[in-house]
Amino acid sequence: MKIKVVESVLKANDAVARENRRRFEAAGVLAVNLMSAPGSGKTALLERTLAGLGPDVRSAVVVGDLQTTRDAERLQNTAQQVVQINTGTGCHLTATQVAEALESLELAGLHYLFIENVGNMVCPAGFDLGEHVRVALLSTPEGDDKVAKYPTLFLCADVILLTKTDLVAVLDYRRERVYEDISRINPRAPVMELSCRTGEGVDRWLSWLKDERRRRTREVTTG
Amino acid sequence: MKIKVVESVLKANDAVARENRRRFEAAGVLAVNLMSAPGSGKTALLERTLAGLGPDVRSAVVVGDLQTTRDAERLQNTAQQVVQINTGTGCHLTATQVAEALESLELAGLHYLFIENVGNMVCPAGFDLGEHVRVALLSTPEGDDKVAKYPTLFLCADVILLTKTDLVAVLDYRRERVYEDISRINPRAPVMELSCRTGEGVDRWLSWLKDERRRRTREVTTG
Repeated sequence: MKIKVVESVLKANDAVARENRRRFEAAGVLAVNLMSAPGSGKTALLERTLAGLGPDVRSAVVVGDLQTTRDAERLQNTAQQVVQINTGTGCHLTATQVAEALESLELAGLHYLFIENVGNMVCPAGFDLGEHVRVALLSTPEGDDKVAKYPTLFLCADVILLTKTDLVAVLDYRRERVYEDISRINPRAPVMELSCRTGEGVDRWLSWLKDERRRRTREVTTG
Repeated sequence: MKIKVVESVLKANDAVARENRRRFEAAGVLAVNLMSAPGSGKTALLERTLAGLGPDVRSAVVVGDLQTTRDAERLQNTAQQVVQINTGTGCHLTATQVAEALESLELAGLHYLFIENVGNMVCPAGFDLGEHVRVALLSTPEGDDKVAKYPTLFLCADVILLTKTDLVAVLDYRRERVYEDISRINPRAPVMELSCRTGEGVDRWLSWLKDERRRRTREVTTG
């Protein structure tokens, strides 16, 4: 009985997600869903990404948090459009919340839509928002044991970013442990190390992102 | 309809939680529920706490993770008894899971039962496990903005621990922002800063914990 309810919620979510995806593709927008624990640096990554993509690239951001508009405020100067979703007690974004946010966004002419999910390593992974790309972030101070302990997020990721690498020097952190777990759980996902504070590694991530947009846009055009 | 299901799940959980609490009280055990995002240092805190309480104090630990027995392995030398619960895809512990873990534990003669919840800043706070004390951890590298963004966890905490304070020197971290948010959201909870790596601040936490046990055990005895 409980499972039935969960399934019907997921089915309804997936239908809305498909409609979101159709709208993104019609507008030629690459939709990117950023997922991680709270404090892994999703907003800092967006600040770096928006600045790094340059002024000719037009991006919008949908930010999910339980409360406050702090992340939206941080991003309002770098993103062309920002919508904050407050989930109240909700532990993840849903496709319907994203669809509602789209009412306040102008998709035409955009290159990227970044969706910063609620900080949570478990629940967001279960909900398709209509995105093309799922980015899983894991910051070094969270520890080198998290991939195996919380596989859900990493299983479904298209790319895995190890963030805050500038802190490795002051942590007891064994990189090889993380890579070993990832290679077992999701060997297809590229893994990139970066520090949004120093900027190290950000270029590789930006290249990957641009390639992904080129590839997906071509797919849409030719498909 | 959805809300009704959630309510009945919570009602069933609360009934089991009450029974857990009754068992803890009958055995004179203080039950402590540790909650935080992944990587805030719950297991490190337990290592320090078990060592700091000394050999005359008998403690058991119930550890929740989606997968692996890594935390249980870390604690097996310091705790008298350890039970690992793997929740699969479950994003929080339930009172029923704790009740099942109690089948493998001998409560008689124990002083403390520590329950390390699944790393998640949102969902665990909604589920009473039968604990007497709720401990919310927030590590400094998660950032100084999390209390206001994820209030659920901090609202219901009996004590708030700011962990990994040894990293503050290398972070852009404004303590006053955290204290300001806490004073607005949960002004009654004591806030303690500590570093499990250096040991700084651990004594104050241990004193608080011992006082809590003394107070609660007296309450049980006289009440």
